Amino acid sequence: MNEHIVKSYEDELNTLTADCARMGGLTEAQVGDALDAVVKRDQALAESVVGRDERLDLLEADIERKAIRLIALRQPMANDLRKTVAAMKIASNLERCGDLAKNIAKRTMILNEAEPISPLTRSIERMGRLVAGRLKDVLDAYTGSDLDRALAVWSRDDEVDEHYNSLFRELLTYMMGDPRTITACAHLLFVAKNLERIGDHATNIAEIIHYEITGEEMISADRPKTDALSA
Amino acid sequence: MNEHIVKSYEDELNTLTADCARMGGLTEAQVGDALDAVVKRDQALAESVVGRDERLDLLEADIERKAIRLIALRQPMANDLRKTVAAMKIASNLERCGDLAKNIAKRTMILNEAEPISPLTRSIERMGRLVAGRLKDVLDAYTGSDLDRALAVWSRDDEVDEHYNSLFRELLTYMMGDPRTITACAHLLFVAKNLERIGDHATNIAEIIHYEITGEEMISADRPKTDALSA
Repeated sequence: MNEHIVKSYEDELNTLTADCARMGGLTEAQVGDALDAVVKRDQALAESVVGRDERLDLLEADIERKAIRLIALRQPMANDLRKTVAAMKIASNLERCGDLAKNIAKRTMILNEAEPISPLTRSIERMGRLVAGRLKDVLDAYTGSDLDRALAVWSRDDEVDEHYNSLFRELLTYMMGDPRTITACAHLLFVAKNLERIGDHATNIAEIIHYEITGEEMISADRPKTDALSA
Repeated sequence: MNEHIVKSYEDELNTLTADCARMGGLTEAQVGDALDAVVKRDQALAESVVGRDERLDLLEADIERKAIRLIALRQPMANDLRKTVAAMKIASNLERCGDLAKNIAKRTMILNEAEPISPLTRSIERMGRLVAGRLKDVLDAYTGSDLDRALAVWSRDDEVDEHYNSLFRELLTYMMGDPRTITACAHLLFVAKNLERIGDHATNIAEIIHYEITGEEMISADRPKTDALSA
C-alpha cells in the first residue's frame, strides 16, 4: 500500500469523526433552542428549530453512507473499525435527539395558545438544562476521546429519571387541581418525556464511546437506574 | 474466488436476512402480546413481554455484528450491500418496536391498579390492531421482497396518525370529565403514543425495503401525512 492511499484512508476516517462532531454541535444547538423556545414561549425560535431539523437528517444519511463506504472499501480493523461504527451509531442517536427537539418545538407552538403555567415552565427548564448538559458532556467526551467523562455521563443517568418522575407527578397534580390546564399539561407531559429520551440518547452515546475506546460492551444492568414508569 | 468462498458468502447473506426475518416474527409477537396485556389487563402476559425484550436487544446486536463483518470481509456490492445494510437498519427499527412494546407492558402493570375504562380500552385496541397489522404487512413485504406491499404500508401511514389524534382528544375529554381518571389516562396517552411510534417504525421499514429493492431513497414529503401534534 503506498503512502498516498494510507493518507487518504486516514483522511476519510478523520472526516467521518469530524462530521459526527459537527453534527453533535448542531444537535446541541437544536436541543438548546427547543428548550429556550418552550421556556420563553418564542414562536419564531420554535419555527426555526423545526425548519433546521432536515439538516440533521441529511447529515446522518451522509455519515452512514461514508461509514459503510469506508468499511467496504478500506476494511478498517480493530480501533479504526470501532471508530467508524461508533460515528455511524452516534449519528443515528443524534438524529433522534434532533427529532425530539423538533417535537418539543412543535409543542411550543401549541402551548403558546394556552395560558403560561410558570412553576411548570421552571421545572421543565431545570430538567431541560440537566439533559442539555449531559448531551454537551458526552459530546465533549467524544471529541476528546475521554473515557472518564463518558463514564461520568453514563453513571448519572438516573438524575434525569428522577427529574422526569417528579415532573410527571407535578403535571398530574396540576391537571387534577385545575382541569382547564389539562390540554397544556398533556403537551408538557410529552415535552418532559422527550427530554428524558434525549437524556437516554446521551447515555447510549456514552456506551458507544466506551465501546469505541475499550472494545468492550457496557452492561446496562450495572447502571444505577430509577424506573421512569413508577411515577 | 473458488466455489467454496462464493457459497459461504451467500450463506452469510442468507443467514443475515433470515435472522432479521426471525427477529421480525419475535417483535410482532411482542407487540401483539403487549396489546393483549393492556386490553385484557393481563399482568402475567405483561411480565412475560418485559422479560422477553432482552432477546430482541441481543438479536439486534448480533445482526449488526454480522452485517459489519460481512461488509468488511466480503465487500458486498450493489444489491448485496443494500441487502446487508437493510438487515442492519430493519433490526434497529425492530429493536425500538420491542422497547415500545416493553413500555406498553410496563404501563399495563400500573393501569391494572386503576379502574378499567372500557370505551378507552376499545379505542386503544382498535389503534393497536391497526398498528400490529402494519407491522405484519411490512414484515411480509420484507420476507417476500414485495415492493408493492411495502409501498402500500408506506402510503397508509396517515391512518395511524388519525387514530392517534382521535384517541388523544378522547383521553383529554375523559380527564376533563372525571379528574379521578387523570393518572390512568396519562399512562394511556403514552400507550397511544407508543403505538403511533411502532406505526412510524413500520413506515421506516417500508422505506428501507424500497431502498433495498430499488436502490432509490423515498421522499417522505410525498407521503400523505396528518400531523400527529395538531390533536
